[in-house]
Amino acid sequence: MNSGTEKEKNRRITKNSSIKSGMKPGSLVHVGVPVKEGVRISLVKYNELDYTEEPVSVIGESLTEPYDGVRWIKVEGINDTAAVERLGELFNVNPFVQEDILNTNSRPKLDEYEEYIYILVKSLAFEKEKIVLHGEQVSIVLGNDFVMSFCESDTHMFEPVVRRIKAPKSLMRKRGCDYLAYALVDSIVDNYFQVLENIEDNLDELEDELISKPKQGTLRSIYGLKKELILLRKSVWPLREVLNLMQSGDSEFIEKATEMYLRDVYDHVIQVIDTTQLFVDIVTGMLDTYLSSVNNRMSEVMKVLTIFSTIFIPVTFLAGVYGMNFAYMPELNQRWAYPLFWTIVLAVISTMLIVFKKRNWF
Amino acid sequence: MNSGTEKEKNRRITKNSSIKSGMKPGSLVHVGVPVKEGVRISLVKYNELDYTEEPVSVIGESLTEPYDGVRWIKVEGINDTAAVERLGELFNVNPFVQEDILNTNSRPKLDEYEEYIYILVKSLAFEKEKIVLHGEQVSIVLGNDFVMSFCESDTHMFEPVVRRIKAPKSLMRKRGCDYLAYALVDSIVDNYFQVLENIEDNLDELEDELISKPKQGTLRSIYGLKKELILLRKSVWPLREVLNLMQSGDSEFIEKATEMYLRDVYDHVIQVIDTTQLFVDIVTGMLDTYLSSVNNRMSEVMKVLTIFSTIFIPVTFLAGVYGMNFAYMPELNQRWAYPLFWTIVLAVISTMLIVFKKRNWF
Amino acid sequence: MNSGTEKEKNRRITKNSSIKSGMKPGSLVHVGVPVKEGVRISLVKYNELDYTEEPVSVIGESLTEPYDGVRWIKVEGINDTAAVERLGELFNVNPFVQEDILNTNSRPKLDEYEEYIYILVKSLAFEKEKIVLHGEQVSIVLGNDFVMSFCESDTHMFEPVVRRIKAPKSLMRKRGCDYLAYALVDSIVDNYFQVLENIEDNLDELEDELISKPKQGTLRSIYGLKKELILLRKSVWPLREVLNLMQSGDSEFIEKATEMYLRDVYDHVIQVIDTTQLFVDIVTGMLDTYLSSVNNRMSEVMKVLTIFSTIFIPVTFLAGVYGMNFAYMPELNQRWAYPLFWTIVLAVISTMLIVFKKRNWF
Amino acid sequence: MNSGTEKEKNRRITKNSSIKSGMKPGSLVHVGVPVKEGVRISLVKYNELDYTEEPVSVIGESLTEPYDGVRWIKVEGINDTAAVERLGELFNVNPFVQEDILNTNSRPKLDEYEEYIYILVKSLAFEKEKIVLHGEQVSIVLGNDFVMSFCESDTHMFEPVVRRIKAPKSLMRKRGCDYLAYALVDSIVDNYFQVLENIEDNLDELEDELISKPKQGTLRSIYGLKKELILLRKSVWPLREVLNLMQSGDSEFIEKATEMYLRDVYDHVIQVIDTTQLFVDIVTGMLDTYLSSVNNRMSEVMKVLTIFSTIFIPVTFLAGVYGMNFAYMPELNQRWAYPLFWTIVLAVISTMLIVFKKRNWF
Amino acid sequence: MNSGTEKEKNRRITKNSSIKSGMKPGSLVHVGVPVKEGVRISLVKYNELDYTEEPVSVIGESLTEPYDGVRWIKVEGINDTAAVERLGELFNVNPFVQEDILNTNSRPKLDEYEEYIYILVKSLAFEKEKIVLHGEQVSIVLGNDFVMSFCESDTHMFEPVVRRIKAPKSLMRKRGCDYLAYALVDSIVDNYFQVLENIEDNLDELEDELISKPKQGTLRSIYGLKKELILLRKSVWPLREVLNLMQSGDSEFIEKATEMYLRDVYDHVIQVIDTTQLFVDIVTGMLDTYLSSVNNRMSEVMKVLTIFSTIFIPVTFLAGVYGMNFAYMPELNQRWAYPLFWTIVLAVISTMLIVFKKRNWF
Repeated sequence: MNSGTEKEKNRRITKNSSIKSGMKPGSLVHVGVPVKEGVRISLVKYNELDYTEEPVSVIGESLTEPYDGVRWIKVEGINDTAAVERLGELFNVNPFVQEDILNTNSRPKLDEYEEYIYILVKSLAFEKEKIVLHGEQVSIVLGNDFVMSFCESDTHMFEPVVRRIKAPKSLMRKRGCDYLAYALVDSIVDNYFQVLENIEDNLDELEDELISKPKQGTLRSIYGLKKELILLRKSVWPLREVLNLMQSGDSEFIEKATEMYLRDVYDHVIQVIDTTQLFVDIVTGMLDTYLSSVNNRMSEVMKVLTIFSTIFIPVTFLAGVYGMNFAYMPELNQRWAYPLFWTIVLAVISTMLIVFKKRNWF
Repeated sequence: MNSGTEKEKNRRITKNSSIKSGMKPGSLVHVGVPVKEGVRISLVKYNELDYTEEPVSVIGESLTEPYDGVRWIKVEGINDTAAVERLGELFNVNPFVQEDILNTNSRPKLDEYEEYIYILVKSLAFEKEKIVLHGEQVSIVLGNDFVMSFCESDTHMFEPVVRRIKAPKSLMRKRGCDYLAYALVDSIVDNYFQVLENIEDNLDELEDELISKPKQGTLRSIYGLKKELILLRKSVWPLREVLNLMQSGDSEFIEKATEMYLRDVYDHVIQVIDTTQLFVDIVTGMLDTYLSSVNNRMSEVMKVLTIFSTIFIPVTFLAGVYGMNFAYMPELNQRWAYPLFWTIVLAVISTMLIVFKKRNWF
Repeated sequence: MNSGTEKEKNRRITKNSSIKSGMKPGSLVHVGVPVKEGVRISLVKYNELDYTEEPVSVIGESLTEPYDGVRWIKVEGINDTAAVERLGELFNVNPFVQEDILNTNSRPKLDEYEEYIYILVKSLAFEKEKIVLHGEQVSIVLGNDFVMSFCESDTHMFEPVVRRIKAPKSLMRKRGCDYLAYALVDSIVDNYFQVLENIEDNLDELEDELISKPKQGTLRSIYGLKKELILLRKSVWPLREVLNLMQSGDSEFIEKATEMYLRDVYDHVIQVIDTTQLFVDIVTGMLDTYLSSVNNRMSEVMKVLTIFSTIFIPVTFLAGVYGMNFAYMPELNQRWAYPLFWTIVLAVISTMLIVFKKRNWF
Repeated sequence: MNSGTEKEKNRRITKNSSIKSGMKPGSLVHVGVPVKEGVRISLVKYNELDYTEEPVSVIGESLTEPYDGVRWIKVEGINDTAAVERLGELFNVNPFVQEDILNTNSRPKLDEYEEYIYILVKSLAFEKEKIVLHGEQVSIVLGNDFVMSFCESDTHMFEPVVRRIKAPKSLMRKRGCDYLAYALVDSIVDNYFQVLENIEDNLDELEDELISKPKQGTLRSIYGLKKELILLRKSVWPLREVLNLMQSGDSEFIEKATEMYLRDVYDHVIQVIDTTQLFVDIVTGMLDTYLSSVNNRMSEVMKVLTIFSTIFIPVTFLAGVYGMNFAYMPELNQRWAYPLFWTIVLAVISTMLIVFKKRNWF
Repeated sequence: MNSGTEKEKNRRITKNSSIKSGMKPGSLVHVGVPVKEGVRISLVKYNELDYTEEPVSVIGESLTEPYDGVRWIKVEGINDTAAVERLGELFNVNPFVQEDILNTNSRPKLDEYEEYIYILVKSLAFEKEKIVLHGEQVSIVLGNDFVMSFCESDTHMFEPVVRRIKAPKSLMRKRGCDYLAYALVDSIVDNYFQVLENIEDNLDELEDELISKPKQGTLRSIYGLKKELILLRKSVWPLREVLNLMQSGDSEFIEKATEMYLRDVYDHVIQVIDTTQLFVDIVTGMLDTYLSSVNNRMSEVMKVLTIFSTIFIPVTFLAGVYGMNFAYMPELNQRWAYPLFWTIVLAVISTMLIVFKKRNWF
C-alpha cells in the first residue's frame, strides 16, 4: 500500500479512492487525511422531557442500551478505524457502509438496509480569497431508535442542531429519529446557500475587475471559479436523488410527518442546483466577454499601428529619395522643390486620413 | 442575522436565501427588501349577484366568516411578517408555506396540502433601457372557499382581474375560487409576452447597431441581454411543471371546467419557454457574427498594413543605399543612375501590386 | 389596444401575442396582418357520387344542414373576427379555439374536445433570394361530419386537395372527414420538403461562394440562414407530437383506416426534423470553415509582412549608418567598403530567407 | 413534374423527396437516378434439400406459387416503377410501402403490416480518396413464406448471402424467411464496419498530415470528413430502433430462435453508433488542435516581427538623425562621436534582447 | 481475408471488427493480436474446505466433472481459437458468445442465456508517459456451478482474487459462483481508479506546465489526454447498464446476498463515469485557458510593436526630411534648427507615451 506519498496529497478529486484496490471488499481501511487529535464521540439522548449529552470514551454495550427517545451517536473525526468498526458491530452496520464512512471520496447517496438507512452527503465551504471549494463527507445512519453521524473532522458542524435540541420546547424534542436525520441534512444544505453567496460575491468582484482594469490574474481567477463550480455541481447533483428517495414515502424509517420537511429540503437542493448552473452560464459569459474584448482591443491596436505606418512609410520613402547622393538629380537644385516636397507630404497624409475616416477606423 | 449589509444588496441571485441558515425550519423571518409603506390587505368577496371590496386593517376572525361565493384576501407588500403569520394561523396554513411566501428567492412551484394548494410564481418586468429583468414573487393559496394572494410590493398587479370581477356579467362572477386562481396566474403569464416583446425590440435594435455602427457598448449590451435571457429561462422553466400539475385533473381544488383554461395557460408557458430559447440562440448567433466581423476587419487592416509595408520597405532601403556617403560609389556619378532608380522603384511597386491583386488582397 | 404601431410590424417572433394581455381569456380579438380583401369562405360538399363547391356570403344555418358525406368549410383570410365568431357559434366551437385561430402566433398543437379535434399547423415558404422563412398559420377543426379550415390569407394553398376531390374516382370521395383532415395536413407537410430543397440550394450556393470568392455579404448570409433554420426547427418540432397524437388510435374522430396514412405523414415530419438538424450542423460547419480560413489567411498575411520587414529592417539600418555625416568615419573612404556593404546586405537577406524556409514560412 | 433538372442532381440530402408534393398519397412515382440497364429480378427458392435461382422476366402468378421453403424475390435496380407496382399487387403490398421502396430518400424504419413487415435500411460505402459517403437504400419485405428485397442499383450486394444459401449444409437452409431477412440486414450492418475502418484510416492520415505538414487542403478535408460523419450518424441512428423492434419478440413474422441473432446485429449497430460519435469527437478535437496551432504560429510570427522592429527602429532613427544636413550639429565633428554611436546602438540592441529574453519571447 | 496488413495494426478503434464481414454469423475466427506464447488455462476448484489449482493442458471432459463447490476455468490469452471453441462446446456456450470472446473490439455488455450469463468488460491501464490508454477485453461466463474467464493476454490480472481464494477463511470460500464473478468484475473496476489517479497526476503536471512554461508539446499533450478521456468514457459508460442488470435481482444466477456487493460496484462505476466527465470538463477548461493566454500574449506583443512603431516612425520621417539634399532648405542653416529638432522629437515621443499610458497600454 503505497499511500501517503507526496504526489497523492495533491490530488483533490481521486484522492485515495484506489487504496483498497485488490483487497477484499468491505474490508476496513481508514482512508482520510490523518488528523492529529483523536476522534470525538458523544452520545446525545433526548425525549420530550429529558436531554443529556455525554462524551463517549469506551465504545461498549452502554451505547445500545434502550432509551425511550432518540439516541444520537455523534462521531467527529473518522481517523480511528477501530472505533468505526466497533460502532458498526454494535449497531449491526454492514461492512460496506463502514467502508463508505471511511472512504472520503464517495458520492452522495442513500442506501436502504433492513435495519437502517445510510445517507451520505457532502458538507461544503468556499474559501473566497483562494477561490477553492472545500468538501467534507458526512455520513448519517438512521435506525429505528438511533441516529449515528460521522463527520470527517472536528468542526462543530452540528452546533445549531444541538442548540435546538437543548431548547426544552423545540419541535425537535417532540419528534423522532427521522426528524433528527432531517435536521442534520437540512443544516448541511442550508450551508450550501452560504457557499453560493460567497461565489456570487466572488463573481461580482471578478465582473467589476473585468470591466474596469483586468489584471494578469483575472482570467486565471475566472477559470478557477468555473472549475470550482463544476466541482460544486458534481457534489450537489446526486443529492437530488437522495432527497427524492427520502421523501418518497416508501421507507419505514421515515414518518409521514417528516416527509413534508424533506420536501422543503428537496426544494432547496433543486434551487442550489439551478443556481449553480446559472453561475456556470454566467462565468462562461464572462469568459466570452473577456475574450472578445481582448480581440477587440487587439483590433484597435492594429488599427493604430496601421494608420501610423501607412501614413509615414510613403513619405519617409520620399524623404529618403531626396537624401540620395546621385550627382545628377535635377530637382535638388530647384527653389520650389523643398516647398513642393512638403506639399506632397501633407497631401499624402491628409488623403490617408480621409480614407481611414471613411472606413471608420477612428 | 447579518442581513442588510451593503454587500448583500448587490446580490441579485442568491439574495438573502441563506438568512435562516441554522434556524429551526419553518421559522418565520421576513426576507425581502424593506418597503417603507405598510402592507396593503384587501378582502374581496363576490358571487354571481354581489361584489364587495374592503381594506383590512385588523387581521381577525372576520376574514374567515363563511360567505356564499369567493373570498379573496389580496395582500400587497409582504414586509409585515406578523401579518403573514396571523393570516397563516387563521387559514391554517403550514409554516413552510409561510416561509416560502416571505422568502422572495424561491423557485416557482406548486405544493398540494390537505386543505389548500400553494402556488408560487414569478411576475416579471423588463427594463429596456438598462437591459435588466426585474422579478417579483407572487404566492397564491387556493383553498376550498378562499384565495389568498401575496405580492412582494404594492404594484396593483391584479388591477385587470379586479376590473373583470367588478363587471357584473363577467364569467368570473359565475365561477369559483379555482377560476380566480387561474385568472391570477393567467394575468402573470400574459405579462411574460410583454417582456418577450420588449426583449425582441431590444434584440432588433442591437442587431441594427451591430450591422451599421457597432459602438463600444454594443458588445456589452448583447452579453448583458444574454445573461438576462438565462435568468428569464430560469424563472419560467419550472412554471411548466406547475401548470402541468394544475391541469392534470388530480386535484380536488380545481374543477373539471377550469382545466380547459389551465391548458391554455400551459400552452402559453410552453410558448414563452420556446421563444426564450429561440432568443438565446439568436443572441448567440449575434455574438458569433460580431466576433467574426471583428476578426474579418482585423484581417483587412492587416492586409492594408502589409501592402503598404511590403511595397515601400524595399524601395526605402534602396533610397537609403544611395544616401550613403561612401567615397567610392561609382553609380552615383552616372547620369542614367537617377532615372534608373525611379524605374526600379516603379517596377518593384507594380510587381507587388500585381502579386497582391492575384492573391485577392484588394 | 395599441396594435399597429410601426415598431410592432418589425417583430417577427413575438408579433402581437401579448395583445390580449389583461383581457378575459377566450375573448375574441383578431390578431393578424390586416388584409385588404375580405375573407373568402367556401362550402365544399362531397360524397362518393356528388361534389359541389359554393362561395358562402352569409354565415347562417345553411352551413350546418345535415349532408350525407363530407362538409368542408374552407376559410381563407382570417381578418374578419365576426365571421370566425359566428362560425364558432354555429359549430359549437370553444372560444379558446376561436382565439387560437385568430392569434397567428401560436405553436402547432392538437387539442381534443368533446365534439371535435382542433389541429394547428404552420404552412411554410422559403424565399431563396432574401433567405427568409415565411410562416402562415393553418387551423383545422375536425368534427364528426364536417371539417373547417382557416388559412391566414387568400393563398389557394389547398388547390391540389380540391383538385383531388373533384376527380370522381379519387380515394378522397370514398373516405370521410378524417381523411380530408389528413389530406390537408399532408399537403402542408409535403410543402416542407420544398422548403428544405430551397434551403439546400441556398446552402450549396453559399458553400460554393465560400470556397471560390467569399464576398462581404457571404458571412452575413450564412448567419441569416442559420437563424431561419432555427426558426424552421421551432415551427416543425411540435408537429411531431401532433401527428403522434393523431395516429395513436385513441380518438373517435379518426378511423382506423386513416391511421396508416397519418403514420406516413408522421414519418415525413420526422424526416423534416432530421434534415433541419442536419442543415443546422452543416451551416455551423460552414461557419467554422470560414472562420478558420480567415484566421489562416491572416496568418499568411502576417508571414509576408514579417518576412519583408525582418529582411529589410536590418539592412536599411546599415544603409542609414553610412548615410551619417560624422566627420570621422574611416570606413567611408575605403575602396572595399561599398562592395563589402552589398556583400553584407546579400548575406543578411539570404540568411533570413534560409531561416524562413526552414520554418516553413513560404 | 420538373424533376431531372440540373440543379436537382447536385442535391445530396433532399434529393427528389418533394417530387410527389401535391399528388395523392401512395401514388407511385419512380424516384431515383435513372439507370440505363433494366431491373434485374431473380427468384431464389430453397429449403433444407433443394436450391434454385432463376431470373424473372415476366412478373406473374408464377412468383406466388406456394413452395415448401423460402421464396426470395431479389430485385436489383428500382427504376422500373411498373415492376414494383406489379410485385406489390401480387404480394398484396400497401401502396405506401411501394412508395417508400421507390423514394430513395427515406429514413431507416420498420413498419409492421398485417401480412408482412417492411424494413428499410441504408447500405453505405465510403470513398476514401474523395471523402464521400455513398448511401443506397435497401427495402426488405418479410412475409410469412416469402422475402422481397429491393436494392437501388445492380450491385451484387447480397452475393455473400447467396453463397451461404448455396452451401447445402449451411444454417440458412434449415431456417425460415425471418432468418433470411436477418442475414440481409446483418450483411449490410457488417459493411458499416468497413466504412468505419476506411474513415479511421482517413482520420489517421489526416492526423499525420496535420502534425507533419498541414497543406492547404488538409483543413478542408477534415471539415469534409466531419460532414460525412454527421451524415453517417443520421443514416445509422434510426437503425437502432428498427433492430430493437425486430428483436423485441412481439412480431409473429420473427421466430423466437432468430431473435438471438438479431440481438447480435443490434449490438453491432450500437457499436457503429458509438464509434461514429467517437469519430465526431476526435475530428472536432483535430480541428481544435489545428486552429490553436495556427494561432500559436501566428503568435510566433508576431514575436519575430516585433523583436526585429523594436530592435532596429530606434537605432535606425538615430542613424537618420546623424544623416541630417543641419549646418550646426556639433557632435558630427567630434572624433569620439562615431564610436559612441555604435556603442549606443549595441547598448540598445542588447538591452532589448535581454528584455525579450526575460519575457520568454525566444 | 486480408487481415494482418500493416495498415490495420495502426487502427486503435475499429481494429479487426469487420474481419468476419460476409461470413456466416457465429463463425469462429480468432480476432486478436497474435501472441507468441500459447494460451494459459487453469482450473481452480474451491469450496469452504478445499482449494486446488491446476494447469489444463488438454481441454476435455475432466473440466465438466461435477464438483461440490466453485469451478473456475481461467483462460489467459485468447489466440487459440480452437481452445475457445472446445470450451464452448463443453459448457454449451452459444457461438455468438464465442465470437464475442474472440472479437476484442466489442462493447461492455451483459447477455443472459438460459444456462449462463455472459459478461464482457474492459480492463484498462493508463501509460502516463505516453498518455495512452490501453484496453484489454475480459469475458466472464457465469454458469450455475462454474465460472469461465477469458483475458486477452497473459497478464496475471486476477492475482489478487486468487490470493483471496487461497486464504482458507476468506469470504470467497463460503460463497458461490456469482460471488466469484462479482469479485472478478470488482477487481477490474477497482483498477479504473488507478487509471483515474494516473490521469489526474497527468492533468496536474500539464496544468503546472501550462502556467509556468508552456512548451511546444504541452498543447498536443492536452489534446491527447482529452482524446484518451473520450475513449475511457466510451469504455466505462456501458458498464453502468451491465451492473444495473446484474444487481436488478431478476437473474437466477445471482443470489440475493451478492446483489449488495454488486450495488457497491455499481456505485464505483457511477463514480468513475462522474470523474471522467469531470476530467473532460477540466481538460476543456485548460485548453480554453491556454488559448486565451496565447491570445492575450499576442495582444501584448502587438502593443509593444505598436508603441515602438508609432513613437519612432514620425520622428524617423523628420530625420529623413533633414537628411535631404535640396539646395534650398533654409532651416538647415539656422543655429536653432538642430536643438529645435530634438525638442520636437522629445515632444512627439512624450505625447505618444502619455496617450498610450492613458489607454492603459502599459
